[in-house]
Amino acid sequence: MKIKPVSEHEQTPVQMEGSQGAKMRMLVGPHDGATNFHMRHFEVAPGGFTPHHQHDYEHEILILAGRGVARSEQGYRPFKAGDVIFVPPDEKHQFLNPNNEPCTFICLIPAPKDCSR
Amino acid sequence: MKIKPVSEHEQTPVQMEGSQGAKMRMLVGPHDGATNFHMRHFEVAPGGFTPHHQHDYEHEILILAGRGVARSEQGYRPFKAGDVIFVPPDEKHQFLNPNNEPCTFICLIPAPKDCSR
Repeated sequence: MKIKPVSEHEQTPVQMEGSQGAKMRMLVGPHDGATNFHMRHFEVAPGGFTPHHQHDYEHEILILAGRGVARSEQGYRPFKAGDVIFVPPDEKHQFLNPNNEPCTFICLIPAPKDCSR
Repeated sequence: MKIKPVSEHEQTPVQMEGSQGAKMRMLVGPHDGATNFHMRHFEVAPGGFTPHHQHDYEHEILILAGRGVARSEQGYRPFKAGDVIFVPPDEKHQFLNPNNEPCTFICLIPAPKDCSR
């Protein structure tokens, strides 16, 4: 059993095209032997955002700190710490942080689809 | 896309034999159309615990608030808010809260193994 603080997981810039001011930590991934799904931690700086894109797999997200705006097929909607977000497969989505504080969240995806390792 | 606070998800007592003082919320589950993995929220009251058991699937856990003790093949180890826990398949495990405050965490499991719906 692994027990390890979030802060002790390496944090790297998100290189994906269309993202800005976002950093990632792999909390539970291939190095842990996780074969079904991966838990990633994201920190989006003030003014930052994730790519506006879609893919054939889901996101399961929990907002840990801060606030932001979710762009989806339902328009732009605010979110805050303590919110749960589910993005179904194939729905176009983006997460933006127009506020003055960093926004952090975990985002889980199916392991076979994870290109972030 | 669903956006919904943790607190607005129904909370029910954990009925599993061997548990005490634990409540669960299904944050992302079958009702959302999540077919690969489910995100559950647990609150363990002071003096409470989850079952001491093992199974053929993993747990991916993030401690949200409070503190507790994890029992595993490596003995009893403390954990606290901000810790990530990975329980590999088939490892016997238990989570106890011997403290004075509730301990809350999310725990994700493969959807096909989820009997908590």
